[in-house]
Amino acid sequence: MSEKNLQVVLASRPTGWVTEENFRLEEGPIPKPGAGEVLVRNHFLSLDPYMRGRMNQQKSYSASVEIGQVMVGGTAGEVVESDDPAFKVGDKVVGQLGWQLYGKGPARGFMKVDTAHVPLSAYLGPVGMPGVTAWVGTNDICAPKKGETLVVSAASGAVGSVVGQLAKMKGIRVVGIAGGATKCDYVLGDLGFDACVDYKSPSFKADLKEALPNGVDCLFENVGGEVMEAVVARFNPFARMALCGLISQYNEVNPQGLKTFASILVNRVMIRGFIVSDHMERWPMALTELGQGVATGKIRYKETIANGLKEAPKAFIGLLKGANLGKQLVKLG
Amino acid sequence: MSEKNLQVVLASRPTGWVTEENFRLEEGPIPKPGAGEVLVRNHFLSLDPYMRGRMNQQKSYSASVEIGQVMVGGTAGEVVESDDPAFKVGDKVVGQLGWQLYGKGPARGFMKVDTAHVPLSAYLGPVGMPGVTAWVGTNDICAPKKGETLVVSAASGAVGSVVGQLAKMKGIRVVGIAGGATKCDYVLGDLGFDACVDYKSPSFKADLKEALPNGVDCLFENVGGEVMEAVVARFNPFARMALCGLISQYNEVNPQGLKTFASILVNRVMIRGFIVSDHMERWPMALTELGQGVATGKIRYKETIANGLKEAPKAFIGLLKGANLGKQLVKLG
Repeated sequence: MSEKNLQVVLASRPTGWVTEENFRLEEGPIPKPGAGEVLVRNHFLSLDPYMRGRMNQQKSYSASVEIGQVMVGGTAGEVVESDDPAFKVGDKVVGQLGWQLYGKGPARGFMKVDTAHVPLSAYLGPVGMPGVTAWVGTNDICAPKKGETLVVSAASGAVGSVVGQLAKMKGIRVVGIAGGATKCDYVLGDLGFDACVDYKSPSFKADLKEALPNGVDCLFENVGGEVMEAVVARFNPFARMALCGLISQYNEVNPQGLKTFASILVNRVMIRGFIVSDHMERWPMALTELGQGVATGKIRYKETIANGLKEAPKAFIGLLKGANLGKQLVKLG
Repeated sequence: MSEKNLQVVLASRPTGWVTEENFRLEEGPIPKPGAGEVLVRNHFLSLDPYMRGRMNQQKSYSASVEIGQVMVGGTAGEVVESDDPAFKVGDKVVGQLGWQLYGKGPARGFMKVDTAHVPLSAYLGPVGMPGVTAWVGTNDICAPKKGETLVVSAASGAVGSVVGQLAKMKGIRVVGIAGGATKCDYVLGDLGFDACVDYKSPSFKADLKEALPNGVDCLFENVGGEVMEAVVARFNPFARMALCGLISQYNEVNPQGLKTFASILVNRVMIRGFIVSDHMERWPMALTELGQGVATGKIRYKETIANGLKEAPKAFIGLLKGANLGKQLVKLG
């Protein structure tokens, strides 16, 4: 291992939109694993919208990244040194090592994965945190019943694409919302949703209404802002909203809330904000189902892959702007 | 019965604030009960915030009142004619006869009540629809656990006063929000809440913070607008909001929503809009507990009583402006 470690650290906190200057690429020594620890060479870094919250000083789901610290993030890679009997060199593992080539940590922080039927990168997507997020929000929070209509925003994304496919398997009418024809074609053609509405179209509201002849019973919300308002306006009585993300608002200095809040009362709606790490007891069942779905081709997915850690900031900003199709990853060589 | 019937009908739909001109007092004949029907002389009319929604053309919980129709409303009175064996002349009954002295309807639309231990008017308050609303929202939606903190807005009102007393019985810290010193004195002194914060005070936000050293786990929301925003800003993770009313917004042409909607995601909050008529299966248990509470003095309440049907419009407008203390009734002579 003559290679050095590479890391992306938080250089400054953004005000409004993230810029590449908020990050800094640093070189350093490869860490040495201590007692009971494992050293991993990451092959893929997952980029996810929640990371935007960690860049802020204010409280988000969990602790902020400090200035100068390595950016947090899910990673998939290969064990290169191990002081724990459960892991041997060459094992493929998923962990939370952040934006860096090499990382180490206690063995309990890693999950060994089988890449015989599911590619390594999929453990950061449909068979990983985004997939389980989709599974928990769809099954436990939205809980759609046969004959109902579910809407999911950011429908072509890592989470949204799985939401719609899981709901379709249950006989639900699924309407996706995505930005642009390419994404909507993918959502309709590859993912098999019943309809996809382009929120960038000037006829968005009319198109949405047309796609929802029976209104909305479930909303898996990833976006917020005017896109969310348009769906709430079509809520049926007793609709449920699984509130997973508000990506359209993360870079706004004055974020927009829910203007039509009275509709929640009038329609007796249930809204539940959730974060998948609060539902660890559901991961084993979810991962089993998702793994089988991907292995058998019943759950389809796409990846947008940036090449090399130095591209991570640009790719992350692209993700926040909706430039990616499917799961946004960084390949670490 | 030489008396004539008196009715208040909807004369016109309000734009923004309700005025007395939106109502019209009419005189007419006393109706004749048909087969299986009961004729009732009402003694009390209940005035409730939901009536504001019925005055609008747009959809609310249920059908609008049409122009020229008698305003809807809960009533308590006495049977004066009966064509049903279950009811005899002199029986005290609660029904939905609206803003009028006399009303008739099928026997199944009335509930016979026992006024030996609970006064007739209380069946429109703590032992009626407002009490059951408080019971369902507190027990089934907020579901506070011992040691948690519950906030209720419009704390001195017909619903809020019962919410706080039910929660106190369960060992919950209860903080009320009300407008002005008289209401807060009542909430603290008579109702026994742990704290009451005056939303009309310039130090409202600071006072609220001081009253909530451990944040907010449950919010029983009756008000909306800036008062709601202030409580949401103090939500703990996994807080629950029973969304019962938004009285501060009912007369706004451009109602304010929930600006800080991102907090629902960050704190993984559950919000549920509800209407007590969707929960009929809970009424028997709720009414039993509430009736025992009132009969034994464990649940206390106050009434603001307007005299005579012609005073109903003014009293209703007062209710929407928070002029009443406790349950707003109209005594029908």
